[in-house]
Amino acid sequence: MRFDEAYSGNVFIKSHPSFEESEAVIYGMPMDWTVSYRPGSRFGPARIREVSIGLEEYSPYLDRELDEVKYFDAGDIPLPFGNAQRSIDMIEQFVDKILEAGKFPLGMGGEHLVSWPVIKAMYKKYPNLAVIHMDAHTDLRVEYEGEPLSHSTPIRKAAELIGPENIFSFGIRSGMKEEFEWAKEAGLYIAKFEVLKPLQEVLPKLAGRPVYITIDIDVLDPAFAPGTGTVDAGGITSKELLAAICEIARSDIHVVGADLVEVAPVYDHSEQTANTASKLIREMILGWVQKRI
Amino acid sequence: MRFDEAYSGNVFIKSHPSFEESEAVIYGMPMDWTVSYRPGSRFGPARIREVSIGLEEYSPYLDRELDEVKYFDAGDIPLPFGNAQRSIDMIEQFVDKILEAGKFPLGMGGEHLVSWPVIKAMYKKYPNLAVIHMDAHTDLRVEYEGEPLSHSTPIRKAAELIGPENIFSFGIRSGMKEEFEWAKEAGLYIAKFEVLKPLQEVLPKLAGRPVYITIDIDVLDPAFAPGTGTVDAGGITSKELLAAICEIARSDIHVVGADLVEVAPVYDHSEQTANTASKLIREMILGWVQKRI
Amino acid sequence: MRFDEAYSGNVFIKSHPSFEESEAVIYGMPMDWTVSYRPGSRFGPARIREVSIGLEEYSPYLDRELDEVKYFDAGDIPLPFGNAQRSIDMIEQFVDKILEAGKFPLGMGGEHLVSWPVIKAMYKKYPNLAVIHMDAHTDLRVEYEGEPLSHSTPIRKAAELIGPENIFSFGIRSGMKEEFEWAKEAGLYIAKFEVLKPLQEVLPKLAGRPVYITIDIDVLDPAFAPGTGTVDAGGITSKELLAAICEIARSDIHVVGADLVEVAPVYDHSEQTANTASKLIREMILGWVQKRI
Amino acid sequence: MRFDEAYSGNVFIKSHPSFEESEAVIYGMPMDWTVSYRPGSRFGPARIREVSIGLEEYSPYLDRELDEVKYFDAGDIPLPFGNAQRSIDMIEQFVDKILEAGKFPLGMGGEHLVSWPVIKAMYKKYPNLAVIHMDAHTDLRVEYEGEPLSHSTPIRKAAELIGPENIFSFGIRSGMKEEFEWAKEAGLYIAKFEVLKPLQEVLPKLAGRPVYITIDIDVLDPAFAPGTGTVDAGGITSKELLAAICEIARSDIHVVGADLVEVAPVYDHSEQTANTASKLIREMILGWVQKRI
Amino acid sequence: MRFDEAYSGNVFIKSHPSFEESEAVIYGMPMDWTVSYRPGSRFGPARIREVSIGLEEYSPYLDRELDEVKYFDAGDIPLPFGNAQRSIDMIEQFVDKILEAGKFPLGMGGEHLVSWPVIKAMYKKYPNLAVIHMDAHTDLRVEYEGEPLSHSTPIRKAAELIGPENIFSFGIRSGMKEEFEWAKEAGLYIAKFEVLKPLQEVLPKLAGRPVYITIDIDVLDPAFAPGTGTVDAGGITSKELLAAICEIARSDIHVVGADLVEVAPVYDHSEQTANTASKLIREMILGWVQKRI
Amino acid sequence: MRFDEAYSGNVFIKSHPSFEESEAVIYGMPMDWTVSYRPGSRFGPARIREVSIGLEEYSPYLDRELDEVKYFDAGDIPLPFGNAQRSIDMIEQFVDKILEAGKFPLGMGGEHLVSWPVIKAMYKKYPNLAVIHMDAHTDLRVEYEGEPLSHSTPIRKAAELIGPENIFSFGIRSGMKEEFEWAKEAGLYIAKFEVLKPLQEVLPKLAGRPVYITIDIDVLDPAFAPGTGTVDAGGITSKELLAAICEIARSDIHVVGADLVEVAPVYDHSEQTANTASKLIREMILGWVQKRI
Repeated sequence: MRFDEAYSGNVFIKSHPSFEESEAVIYGMPMDWTVSYRPGSRFGPARIREVSIGLEEYSPYLDRELDEVKYFDAGDIPLPFGNAQRSIDMIEQFVDKILEAGKFPLGMGGEHLVSWPVIKAMYKKYPNLAVIHMDAHTDLRVEYEGEPLSHSTPIRKAAELIGPENIFSFGIRSGMKEEFEWAKEAGLYIAKFEVLKPLQEVLPKLAGRPVYITIDIDVLDPAFAPGTGTVDAGGITSKELLAAICEIARSDIHVVGADLVEVAPVYDHSEQTANTASKLIREMILGWVQKRI
Repeated sequence: MRFDEAYSGNVFIKSHPSFEESEAVIYGMPMDWTVSYRPGSRFGPARIREVSIGLEEYSPYLDRELDEVKYFDAGDIPLPFGNAQRSIDMIEQFVDKILEAGKFPLGMGGEHLVSWPVIKAMYKKYPNLAVIHMDAHTDLRVEYEGEPLSHSTPIRKAAELIGPENIFSFGIRSGMKEEFEWAKEAGLYIAKFEVLKPLQEVLPKLAGRPVYITIDIDVLDPAFAPGTGTVDAGGITSKELLAAICEIARSDIHVVGADLVEVAPVYDHSEQTANTASKLIREMILGWVQKRI
Repeated sequence: MRFDEAYSGNVFIKSHPSFEESEAVIYGMPMDWTVSYRPGSRFGPARIREVSIGLEEYSPYLDRELDEVKYFDAGDIPLPFGNAQRSIDMIEQFVDKILEAGKFPLGMGGEHLVSWPVIKAMYKKYPNLAVIHMDAHTDLRVEYEGEPLSHSTPIRKAAELIGPENIFSFGIRSGMKEEFEWAKEAGLYIAKFEVLKPLQEVLPKLAGRPVYITIDIDVLDPAFAPGTGTVDAGGITSKELLAAICEIARSDIHVVGADLVEVAPVYDHSEQTANTASKLIREMILGWVQKRI
Repeated sequence: MRFDEAYSGNVFIKSHPSFEESEAVIYGMPMDWTVSYRPGSRFGPARIREVSIGLEEYSPYLDRELDEVKYFDAGDIPLPFGNAQRSIDMIEQFVDKILEAGKFPLGMGGEHLVSWPVIKAMYKKYPNLAVIHMDAHTDLRVEYEGEPLSHSTPIRKAAELIGPENIFSFGIRSGMKEEFEWAKEAGLYIAKFEVLKPLQEVLPKLAGRPVYITIDIDVLDPAFAPGTGTVDAGGITSKELLAAICEIARSDIHVVGADLVEVAPVYDHSEQTANTASKLIREMILGWVQKRI
Repeated sequence: MRFDEAYSGNVFIKSHPSFEESEAVIYGMPMDWTVSYRPGSRFGPARIREVSIGLEEYSPYLDRELDEVKYFDAGDIPLPFGNAQRSIDMIEQFVDKILEAGKFPLGMGGEHLVSWPVIKAMYKKYPNLAVIHMDAHTDLRVEYEGEPLSHSTPIRKAAELIGPENIFSFGIRSGMKEEFEWAKEAGLYIAKFEVLKPLQEVLPKLAGRPVYITIDIDVLDPAFAPGTGTVDAGGITSKELLAAICEIARSDIHVVGADLVEVAPVYDHSEQTANTASKLIREMILGWVQKRI
Repeated sequence: MRFDEAYSGNVFIKSHPSFEESEAVIYGMPMDWTVSYRPGSRFGPARIREVSIGLEEYSPYLDRELDEVKYFDAGDIPLPFGNAQRSIDMIEQFVDKILEAGKFPLGMGGEHLVSWPVIKAMYKKYPNLAVIHMDAHTDLRVEYEGEPLSHSTPIRKAAELIGPENIFSFGIRSGMKEEFEWAKEAGLYIAKFEVLKPLQEVLPKLAGRPVYITIDIDVLDPAFAPGTGTVDAGGITSKELLAAICEIARSDIHVVGADLVEVAPVYDHSEQTANTASKLIREMILGWVQKRI
């Protein structure tokens, strides 16, 4: 019976009730207004929380349990529908506060543009920041049909801020010719099609550095993540993605923040995408939070 | 920013944070283990809460706003999967507590069997209790394939407890011949096919009495509520059901508790059923809670 | 032909195991190869049988039970995929046998073209035959893009065989201008948009005559029957269609056969269309079978 | 064989190939970035065109055929994703051109905000403009969570431009208390819950005036239009909406432009909403285009 | 029990009409009342039978045809909804009879708890029994929220009956820490994540022994089996599972019975899960039935 | 603004407006009337075009852009519903014209039978023709339930026309025993289960020869292509299929035409199948068109 306190409803399973005592903060960025194809990722964070009740608390991959990490679920940031600039500003301020409090930000999108303000905030705290980016798409456009604030531009913006040589993209299988060429010239690392093997090569080079990791769920093949805006054939399996998360957990880098974006529940009647996302979030909590500086 | 307190996530829109200060208590009864056809109503309460964010707070039907009533969302009762007897006992105890505290119980199912323990609890407090029952089905079976605890039996059980002459069923369009015959002999009122008109005749007779109201969402035609276990053609429109709720609100009966059951989200891709249910809950809050004794 | 032994397949609820002893024969005509828009009605009969397990055996509309009528479920006629002419011939022969045996043919489509060979067979036995036709569409085309064997032509063919003055169409809301004009000139009765009221006017004129009744499920509004090939707004409710079936049951006509066609399950995730169809079949059995000459 | 000219693919059925020779212009406004609940209406216009191939060209409601009106399908306006202000400006300019050419603008949304720039353009040409608005929602907010450019504000903006006494809303069943109160004070006509009857009263008062008509598909009950962003129970039937369109066609008002908005195909697996919308567009073409001044 | 006559219901393709003459008996265990997450597997057996009409009768994997094995489809055991204990007792008695008659039991679930009574029955006949278990989950809980009869406990119960050292689990990727630890201590073999390779190592050790094989469809990744209660990322492909079935067919173990459980059709709109299950059943029939002692 | 010319709506992205100037011609063959299981592929071509707007124009697999090839989209051939023979004749004539004009035919199905008339047309122009066939099914039946024109027979017919030794099938995992045996005897090459590796062996043998390539989307596992008529577990990944297309692009064969068939959108709510097909078409355009003689 829960009559003595407010029912704390739909939160990520095993969230800790106190922000102060937590090591990490989970938060949703329910924004999808700049996507060029199929919207709907605004409902990603809520659905990921909802299905997290079906999760086991123990990871046989990492041999750890959720009880070993304290994380607070701050809910969704109340972003203003249709206003990209104000949304981005609000996200940056939100993450600033998490970082000030010395906690690990673990964001859930929403469209990929939400990673841009997070990386801005991270960079203010970690000038030596590197970014690991897993995605089907380069996201290196300068603008999309005239709009610089677009789901196709966040990695380009990040590259211009922290330096393209500090960005490492994996699993890429889609983009404009210009994007690939720019990456090559600028020295931005792109591993086409694969994630695990190139990651094993890159991780040692990043040893000791603070790294932010952004995962677009569409790095998975649509077979493994049909519930996303842009389904693009030829992706990796969820087994490979789980292995990549573990590989990072066992590496010598410092993970200082992370996000998982572009889960759009309405396109997936079986809800496998949201369930997969909730499992990935569990592994990110167990494997990464305590690796921060 | 919500860093100072736990994020109170998926609750029915505008719920009051304090049980003590509230007039009504919303609670889920996530049980579907005795249904004979399609299960899934265990997820009804969670989905109704989730979509309630899309609700307007004002009712142009009743010209009232949610701010005018204080209600606490107690979440779902943690019922033991597959154990009907223990589930029923837990529900009865839960409602006992709400009644002891002098509050209005507003339950969300779950299969219809959940109404049986609620009515038991209501009857202990209100010996003069009458029940208004809106449903496609009589639910008057003695047992279903040998099981007395079944989604087909709650109204029969209630009739045997409080007397069949105190039960008033509306919108009925399905049942065994024996059920209709027993109702006739026992003096249990059944209005076949229609709700609003017969209700207008019955309400004056119940003036001044304490009445519990149980609504099975399948009283609506499947066109208006495809997301339910047993879809049965020939039902009423959501307009008629909304009108019936208002008719009760304007009558001279005392509503002392209510429930809305059998929303099974998985059968309704458009989520119209959960959205309709959340609107019905709003009207029940605005129209009924302050009519209690 | 499987008349000598019980069809061992998915059967309609409460089917009688003996062809010999039965008054009526239920059969499927799983054909959808001439439809111009969305195919899928070939799976209609199987799905209607499957969901019939959810039906009550008693009708509160007619106050009768399935035990009061003996009907045999002969399964689906094994029609050759993609061959309209051979399919039509097989259906005609199949119905010939049912009629020779003195039984009531109750067919399930499949596309509406299947009614054409049935009516041919009926007419051989009943030269005084009239046809009641409930549908969204006139189905009076001479051909469809050059094909005379099309789901748009069965009523025209029937009219040319038995005389347009013997055909009575109800609920029509779609067709070519030429079709409506031809009907007017030829004396074929068309009640636009409505079913129940015009039917009440027509039935007395048909008293004592043998009547075949063909119902296209799309006479219902798509809200009530989304699972069909051609969804066309502005149709009747399932309440009105149920009332029409009862009206016929209480009239003085002789119903000598009937069909229900165009249920296409794949377009209806909630399965309300198949469930509605199975309820309609129940009412047709209870209300019509024992009215035959 | 179509080798001699470009295949003109997905256009509304029977569109005329020449802009110059046409009386009306159909165009899509594929925008959904300011919606507060479920996005997806950006794909409405494309899907309405696609399913229009299933339409009959003749209307038995109006006894007219599509051949009797010449209309050009201009495709979708290429609106910039996520930029509400620029989108609105582009729409206004687009409609300006249609009006300059003396043609009837027939728009398809997209979210309801798209009607705002259209009405601005209409008002420049018709200073005596009245607006008929059919919708579940008042859409009279001044802003939504701080954003004045929102799908909840278009009718308020229109009212402030052309005068609230020139706006006539029908079928309204949702809104904030403040919106209803403002309407009352300002003299903006609102018919709650119903469309046809109040319309019959209002039309004579508008005789001879230029009227723009905007229909939000959610004026229909979700049973009849599940494929929309905000499903709100208690709406009208598609029969009533078709009758309302005909009522206007037979009235003495001048219809000078119209739109149909908020069709969001992803929420409707049966595609009944898009099919219904395409039928409504047909009736609007046949009934309204030649009533313009 | 329906062994005396052919089950006249939806049967698995090419089933033999005589129980007496058959080597194997297919039966459904339509129970899902103890599942903690998503119910619906009660409809698994019926849907697997229904889609089996799409199967080829020949296996290019095993180079055998269904004509080479005689199997009887006994239909679904009529289990009492919501009563776990009685359901389990009925299943055990049902399998007892199959074993008495010297036939191979091939069961279809239903939730995984159904395997527990089957293994009890098997063990009475084969005291030297080993169990091969392919699953995403350990299913080794002692109880689930107080209920010992739960879909999370069957393998634990089996282990306690036949000895943990006689149980071999493959593909496991989910469970409580305690379950993995108990398995380790107790000597219950668990191959994490993989099936084929560890199976190739285990099979020689089981040569000559009677083995019961239980496959939970969720051993497949959700990409390959979205239609199940608990979708858990990181599973094997259907190619690997097909190879595992063949590997067993070519091994020196005696397969004495088998089941395939947890197909829940409602979560898979494409019906790929049921189609895959029907193919797996075909391979189990062709590869395993004639390996029994 | 597109007022000066007709809007050329739903065409494959970046299609060239002139047939004369194009190297290749894309065309749809919207036929599904002979399929024995689930129809719906008639809508495949339209949906593939529609979702092609989500495609990137650049291929990182082939390092080429769509601008480098000129292709005309001729729309769908208007095939007569339900008439297999006439449909086949129309397709053959259509392809004859494309070949006469010296262009590359790139067809989209529709059921697999459509490949038969295309191959007939190809063979008239290229007497030395070989066929590469990727499919789950042999498609080598002589007839299907009496019908020689069936979706199960096209490769047999092709084999009889051009000689079985000129046909090379890959990825086959389903068929009758007789089909595999006939292939063996006749010398028709079948690579079971795999595509890429056997293709690498076969391609050198075909160097310099004109080759037509037909891909049935169901060569992919249902996980990767749920939207097809016959979902058959155990298929290849989309990664392998993309690699196979590239392998062919880099080989020394002359590709003289190709098709992609059996996309049936209604079975895939996420639309991943149509999106995958549109990506495959892009790769076929970029990799194959300029390899023709």
